[in-house]
This record gives sequence, C-alpha cells and structure tokens, in this order.
Amino acid sequence: MARLRPEQDAFGAAMLAHHRGQHAVEVIERDDGFIDTSIGPEWYFAPFRRWPPVERAAIRHARGRVLDVGCGAGRVGLHLQGRGLHVLGIDLSPLAVKVARLRGVRDARVLSIREITPRLGRFDTFVMYGNNFGLLGGWREGRRLLRRFAAMATPGARIIASSNDPYRTKNPAHLAYHRLNRRRGRMPGQVRMRARFSVHCSPWFDYLLVSPEEMRRLLAGTGWQAPRLFQSRGSSYAAVIEKAPESVRPSSAPRRSPPRGRRGPPARR
Amino acid sequence: MARLRPEQDAFGAAMLAHHRGQHAVEVIERDDGFIDTSIGPEWYFAPFRRWPPVERAAIRHARGRVLDVGCGAGRVGLHLQGRGLHVLGIDLSPLAVKVARLRGVRDARVLSIREITPRLGRFDTFVMYGNNFGLLGGWREGRRLLRRFAAMATPGARIIASSNDPYRTKNPAHLAYHRLNRRRGRMPGQVRMRARFSVHCSPWFDYLLVSPEEMRRLLAGTGWQAPRLFQSRGSSYAAVIEKAPESVRPSSAPRRSPPRGRRGPPARR
Repeated sequence: MARLRPEQDAFGAAMLAHHRGQHAVEVIERDDGFIDTSIGPEWYFAPFRRWPPVERAAIRHARGRVLDVGCGAGRVGLHLQGRGLHVLGIDLSPLAVKVARLRGVRDARVLSIREITPRLGRFDTFVMYGNNFGLLGGWREGRRLLRRFAAMATPGARIIASSNDPYRTKNPAHLAYHRLNRRRGRMPGQVRMRARFSVHCSPWFDYLLVSPEEMRRLLAGTGWQAPRLFQSRGSSYAAVIEKAPESVRPSSAPRRSPPRGRRGPPARR
Repeated sequence: MARLRPEQDAFGAAMLAHHRGQHAVEVIERDDGFIDTSIGPEWYFAPFRRWPPVERAAIRHARGRVLDVGCGAGRVGLHLQGRGLHVLGIDLSPLAVKVARLRGVRDARVLSIREITPRLGRFDTFVMYGNNFGLLGGWREGRRLLRRFAAMATPGARIIASSNDPYRTKNPAHLAYHRLNRRRGRMPGQVRMRARFSVHCSPWFDYLLVSPEEMRRLLAGTGWQAPRLFQSRGSSYAAVIEKAPESVRPSSAPRRSPPRGRRGPPARR
C-alpha cells in the first residue's frame, strides 16, 4: 500500500495542528456530496475519563500484547501503557503516528490495516476504537482481515471494537445514502469518504458502519465468536469479541449469508 | 440572477437546521482546495451583546431606513428593529430569508446584492455585517455596486460594514492563496469559495476580504468618503463610510490606482 503523501494526510495534519494548539477542524466528505466535520481532534486526544462510557467499559477486557488498529493520536495506547500493557499502535497517517509518539506512545508505526501480517507477532488483544471497526472497509475485505487477525491471535485473544449503528438515524441524507449503497451492491453503512483539513485531502476510502447484527454476521466463520455488546442510548456501541476455540476455526464454518442490501460483489476500492 | 435551487442553498439549510435546534456545521471550500468550517450558525443568530465589539461600536451609527445586505438569519435586522429603525433585509438564500422572517424580521426578501436597484427606494444606512463587505466580490464589480449604493443613498447616508484583513495571517495556506490570486490577476483576498452543508452545495462565488487600505482605495471615487475604522486586536474590523458630498460624486473623481497584485482584468465570474 502506497504511503500517504503529505498533501493527502489530512487526518494527521489536523492531529498535529491540534497538538500544537492550533485551530484544527477535520472535514469528512462522503461520495454522495454529504459533508460534515469529524467528531473533532480534541476527541482523539481525550484522556480515559472523557471516553464514551461504552468504550471505557469494554477496554477493561484488554490484556497482554495489544495491537491498536488506527491508533491516531494515541489515546488508547497511552491508556493501556498506563495499565502496564505492551501496545503496538499502527496508523496509515504518518503525522498521526508522529503525534502519538510525541505524546508518549512507545511503539507506533505507519502501517495500514491491510499491511498487518504475522510478521508483527501474535497479539492477545486487537483494539479498533473510535469506530475503527469501520477500517475493515466492507464485507469481503472485512472478513479477510478478521481471518488474518485470528491467525495472529493467541488462544483466548479478543478484539475490542467500537462502531456506530447506521440505521439509528432519521437524517434523510443518511437514509438516501443507505439506499444508494444498496443499489450499487454495497453494505448500507459502507461509507466511501475522504478526510480534508486545510489544503490536505485524503484519497477516498471505505469505512464500514455496522449494526450489531451485521457485526455478528461479519464475524461468523472468521475465527471469532459473536460479539459481547456494550450499548449506549445512542447509535454508538462497543464490542468485546473473543477468539473462537480452535475446533470452530474458519475452515469448519458454515457458509455465510450476505449482508443486508448486498446484491453483488462490493465495488472495487 | 437565477434563484438558488434548494440543493444549492447550503447556507440557508444550515441556518434552518440551527433554527430547529439541529446540528448544523456550515463548511466553506475555497477554490484552491482549502476547507474549513464557517464561523458557525450560532454566530449568525447572536444577540447584540454577543456581537464582536467592533460591530457593536459601529452599528450605533445606523439610522433611518436601513438596507441590510446579506441579512442571513436576521441578527442585524432584529437589533435595528428593536431600536425603532425600518430595516429591509435581503439575502440570496431563500431559507435564510425564511429563518429571518420566522425570527421576526418584518421585511426580508430573497434578493442578491447584484439585484439591488433604485426601485427598492432610498436608504439612510447600508449594513454589510459579518464580513459582508465581501459581497462586493471584487474590484470592478465592487466599485460598480458602491456607485449604485451611492445613487440610492440619501444625503448624509452611510455604509456600516465589517471585513477581515487577509494579510493579518501567518497561515501558509492563506499566504499561498494570496500569491495564486496575484498570479491570476485577482485581488489577494478575493476568495472564490462555495458553502456546503449536508448534501447542499452552493455555486462558486467571489467574496472579497480587504485590508483597511484596500477598502479606502475601493471606495475612492464611488460617491463615498474614506472609511472611519473600528479595529480589533485581530484581523477583523468594522467601518462607517459616509456618503461623499455631491460636489465630489463619482464623475469628478480622479482615476483610481488598481488594487495590489492586480495585473489584468478580474477573472469572469
């Protein structure tokens, strides 16, 4: 996977600006023309006490050697290091990794989720926070990555992830986007988006928002058990996902049903 | 001038969403790819006590019949109505005009600054707040509009305007944009931009940010006197601009020097 060029590292540039005390609003653009700001850099820097309650509850299940997938400015890494765990943080954004290191994350590397290989070693915990379950990207790619995580997981390992249920909205723009995605054979919450900050603009990428039921179906047969959910009153939730016993590992899994709205292969990324 | 179609009325849609208590972040995109949020809908709804001090100071010079150019959600109109003045608010945005009326502005109409004609009657005060001096758009068009305002102004009338000095920045992206504008024969602070909110996206338009010196040169010979300035510590400022006595009206004005960086005719809008 090609490295992000500096002018593409919108997320990281926003993180660095915020780290330096500058005004930093990250803008998210969706491929239907919808635009909004992201949850905000301050959120990516939040100390544990300011995390969403569902993320605070689920992270208690972290242990051992941790892979923090999409580590951003390092909020998860700093918290887990403080608990004495060894954390490897990876992020596609060179500037985010720089900020994570500046803030004290001891092992942070520029690496895409698609570049994760067994060469990184085995992990007891995979963290995908800040809705980073979405980095799985889509149905087929997501299941491929989950199988790879399983192959790198110690017995008894777990994924600790958060997501946002895309169906818990009344916004007509979002509902129209779900319909658009169904028409083009994508999962309804499979958001093609790009990040922008100042003159920086990322490439388009897919970010997958799933309902708890979609998460369960995505996981089935990939070497992971059904998620244990930590739900909020809103659309966000966290999940602790235990590794399946060896006897029900991928090869013996039944054939999966396709995701809601999927009528063909996912569009090529 | 063609009316904005609903999908183009990003500014108004953001105003209406904010008026209804919904999340509303207006995004501003510049034609060099720079992106940021606008100053924020709450600001367009601000009561007098929350206005910038320079705007509070300058607005005391409003009197008589007032034309509020780019009235937005009506903050100026509501304040001046409360002082007993008659205010006609105009805005290109149908939804902003709707919101201004809902909030109590008695006379608000969907009208572009370029559609202002003597048929609207004569005015004692023209208000261009929230940096709406920028609606003049550029050097040539701005001077044309200022002459038109002068022709519709009662003796002793004034323009009360605010702007933002574009040169008071150290942001490399802004400094590069000034250079780009100079190269293409535009005023350095002549920002070609569009507004976005949710799936709404406005057409591109020119918004002119000027230094106090540029404002003075733009006004010279258009039937208006040099501006009286109300300056903040930052880049924003307000101006009270008195109508020139009849003896120095446009026809007798000396030839004007071109704006800084202008090397050819302004690009066509």
